[in-house]
Amino acid sequence: MSRTRIHNLAISLDGFATGEPQSLEAPFGHAGHRLHAWMMATRYWSPTGSTGVDDVFAQQFGPGIGAEIMGANKFGPPGWQDDADWKGWWGPNPPFHTPTFVLTHHARPPLEMEGGTTFHFLEASPAEALEVAREAAGGQDVRIGGGPTMARDFLAAGLVDHLHVVQVPIVLGRGVRLWDGLEALEEGYDVEAVSSPTGVTHLTFTRKAAS
Amino acid sequence: MSRTRIHNLAISLDGFATGEPQSLEAPFGHAGHRLHAWMMATRYWSPTGSTGVDDVFAQQFGPGIGAEIMGANKFGPPGWQDDADWKGWWGPNPPFHTPTFVLTHHARPPLEMEGGTTFHFLEASPAEALEVAREAAGGQDVRIGGGPTMARDFLAAGLVDHLHVVQVPIVLGRGVRLWDGLEALEEGYDVEAVSSPTGVTHLTFTRKAAS
Ligand SMILES: NC(=O)c1ccc[n+]([C@@H]2O[C@H](COP(=O)([O-])OP(=O)(O)OC[C@H]3O[C@@H](n4cnc5c(N)ncnc54)[C@H](OP(=O)(O)O)[C@@H]3O)[C@@H](O)[C@H]2O)c1
Ligand SMILES: NC(=O)c1ccc[n+]([C@@H]2O[C@H](COP(=O)([O-])OP(=O)(O)OC[C@H]3O[C@@H](n4cnc5c(N)ncnc54)[C@H](OP(=O)(O)O)[C@@H]3O)[C@@H](O)[C@H]2O)c1
Repeated sequence: MSRTRIHNLAISLDGFATGEPQSLEAPFGHAGHRLHAWMMATRYWSPTGSTGVDDVFAQQFGPGIGAEIMGANKFGPPGWQDDADWKGWWGPNPPFHTPTFVLTHHARPPLEMEGGTTFHFLEASPAEALEVAREAAGGQDVRIGGGPTMARDFLAAGLVDHLHVVQVPIVLGRGVRLWDGLEALEEGYDVEAVSSPTGVTHLTFTRKAAS
Repeated sequence: MSRTRIHNLAISLDGFATGEPQSLEAPFGHAGHRLHAWMMATRYWSPTGSTGVDDVFAQQFGPGIGAEIMGANKFGPPGWQDDADWKGWWGPNPPFHTPTFVLTHHARPPLEMEGGTTFHFLEASPAEALEVAREAAGGQDVRIGGGPTMARDFLAAGLVDHLHVVQVPIVLGRGVRLWDGLEALEEGYDVEAVSSPTGVTHLTFTRKAAS
């Protein structure tokens, strides 16, 4: 069965998955690199990185994934829609390596990149977008790439089978929150928590088997 | 040195330390007992309880404490100020066993209970209240008992030396948040996180030594 998965979604103690304001110079606003420092210290990120619990979680990102869906604000900074040459943050060979669907109200023609990533732009409900992405994934899983607004929409619609959140021990105070509108989310999931010696805590939500 | 400590402050994943509405029948509103189920399963709470990580944290509540300060909404449900006979939730022998200062805009005469607890009612800034409580504590530590509004005020004023928060894997969606207005709180503290097999995660903030 093709599953819908979220990986490595980093939030502060107060639940913000990005700071503010988002810009070309500071994609995460005042959060800077703090939400992802744990990941940059792993082998997943660099050959001299750690191979402990943070790394094994980070490594789950790729395997078994046949397509990604991301939000417009993950794809580029405010205003990218007016820049015909914007091709995302990730250079010529983005780390997705699959069809990647950008949810946006400003659709444009597909962008074929190196390494297997093609960006498709579409305006669709979460359920419709998932149907399109699942088709493109050829039987493999679909990753919901974030940001938080989009992740929240898919969670609220009950479309996510696996959620991995990394809680970083900082209080951001402002930005975009992950948990809003998700009261009682845990009821549909088995939830586990494991803290890493690096200070972050990995939370996993695994959808309960239908009974 | 007498320290100011917060213990066993339980919050949801989205940071709520109580649900809503608070009432005589439901002191934690729609949260019910869910924020404290971890504690009720420990030896600290009952003779047949567990003795693992949840218990050792819970046990820190009493030792070394010479006084508590709590908020008006912890002392009673909305409207307790109009009930001259209200003596708190805890029966004749409350679990504080020290002078206990209730911050309220509706002060009344002190209430001497069994077991060493005397409730004093006062209207004062956090710093002033702490001075009074520290005096009463006779050189021992002062516990900030919550609720979240009050804990937040003491944290924002930089008055807390030790903070122990227990994060419960539920999404409450509404209630009173702990982290609001505390941006960058972590900068003054060494922060540790440890998850328990029961699913909760214990976070400790230990104030950094002045350098
Ligand atoms: N912490 C992490 O692990 C993590 C992960 C990924 C991203 N991020 C960060 O999160 C931030 C972006 O998150 P965000 O919550 O601001 O935004 P987002 O979820 O990336 O994108 C939301 C936007 O996508 C478009 N959109 C969403 N649903 C749509 C639909 N059904 N149909 C058409 N368009 C739709 C809308 O943009 P338009 O109306 O403008 O088209 C909407 O404003 C960035 O700072 C990014 O770096 C963090
Ligand atoms: N999750 C946990 O571990 C935990 C721990 C403790 C309590 N709780 C729960 O938290 C809830 C109460 O928290 P809360 O945030 O609503 O309220 P709270 O912090 O208990 O009390 C806030 C109230 O205290 C009074 N107050 C605060 N500062 C004052 C000052 N400087 N001078 C005079 N009065 C002052 C004001 O009431 P007035 O203006 O009305 O006098 C204010 O509205 C309850 O449901 C309780 O059961 C949870």
